[in-house]
Amino acid sequence: MLTLHHLGHSQSERIVWLCEELGLDYELKRYQRRSDNRLAPPEYKALHPMGTAPVLTDGDLVLGESGAICEYLIQTHGNGRLAVKPGEPSFPDYLYWFHFANGTLQPLVLQVRYLERVDPSDKNAPLQAAKDRFNLVFSTLEKRLGEAPYLAGNELTAADIMTVFTLTTMRLFKPYDLSPWPNILAYLQRIGARPAYRRAMQKADPDLTPVLGAVPK
Amino acid sequence: MLTLHHLGHSQSERIVWLCEELGLDYELKRYQRRSDNRLAPPEYKALHPMGTAPVLTDGDLVLGESGAICEYLIQTHGNGRLAVKPGEPSFPDYLYWFHFANGTLQPLVLQVRYLERVDPSDKNAPLQAAKDRFNLVFSTLEKRLGEAPYLAGNELTAADIMTVFTLTTMRLFKPYDLSPWPNILAYLQRIGARPAYRRAMQKADPDLTPVLGAVPK
Repeated sequence: MLTLHHLGHSQSERIVWLCEELGLDYELKRYQRRSDNRLAPPEYKALHPMGTAPVLTDGDLVLGESGAICEYLIQTHGNGRLAVKPGEPSFPDYLYWFHFANGTLQPLVLQVRYLERVDPSDKNAPLQAAKDRFNLVFSTLEKRLGEAPYLAGNELTAADIMTVFTLTTMRLFKPYDLSPWPNILAYLQRIGARPAYRRAMQKADPDLTPVLGAVPK
Repeated sequence: MLTLHHLGHSQSERIVWLCEELGLDYELKRYQRRSDNRLAPPEYKALHPMGTAPVLTDGDLVLGESGAICEYLIQTHGNGRLAVKPGEPSFPDYLYWFHFANGTLQPLVLQVRYLERVDPSDKNAPLQAAKDRFNLVFSTLEKRLGEAPYLAGNELTAADIMTVFTLTTMRLFKPYDLSPWPNILAYLQRIGARPAYRRAMQKADPDLTPVLGAVPK
């Protein structure tokens, strides 16, 4: 039995969405953040050595890391759907954007956030460098989404499922404005119109309106 | 024709190592960091929109992101070797540690480094939290390497190839001491004894002695 352990307002929403897109039979267990510090509660941290979301259990298996869970579910329960196979023309694009999500985009946005907390001034040289890089990363994503409706091409893939959280719910924690990037905003509207995404967000965080606009609310 | 563009003393060493383990026919182009700021030279930044290492070219294809390049080379040029296939017992371990490398380990070590640069004092709360997390991450890696000689089990896989850079060459930029973690140190000695790793490090950075010990030199 697949059980997805979803921490509220966290990147485990990716896996709820994946399960809904794949039409998997899964149990969703929801956990609320602590009210005092917004961190995961002790029972969530106890699930996996890293104590972070997402966590999937499948019989005796306890698996963490978004990228690992995506690949595991797609290959062992999803008949390979939402991945692109070697030899298909969009295979390199699929791989690039799938790995870009947690290899470049997500750590960069977190880095800007932490550096701003410590010293938001112009004298913070690592912060200024990270902000320059932020603009480069978002410009590149903007360009890609002017070429194709989804990151790997014409169809939604797991590359999109890995990427969207950083552009949506994560902005509740690290607010930033997407107005300069109209292609990214149009992409988020396409995502928000998908029935599986709407079901996932409703199941994962029924208290939350998906953060799809230019300015997080 | 496969061409690997290797920026000296950077994570593109992963891909040199992968090519050597797979026995691929590839051209290695080496680029030196700028002497004034240790960043990539303009001709390296021009290769790919992100301007970061690694970059692989294969005919017209220009591909970035370590994880994407690993999967691409293994699946399209390596007959699937050094990956673990769905259904094999170590498939979840393989996926976990492969994605852990750039999803958790590498961004955390960079985060500690940047936060220390801005304010190394005890008053830097994000730094203290990142250091606690650093200890958790290294303890978990230490435990795993007490259970198995390589991250996915008995054999070297791409999960190791993704992970080792953060434990070795990266310590030249962000020095930290591995003495508390004997299993990690024994693992690095096993890696350092592999002929393909030795060839790769000699080809990639002939001026550098692989940083395999407890304290970077």
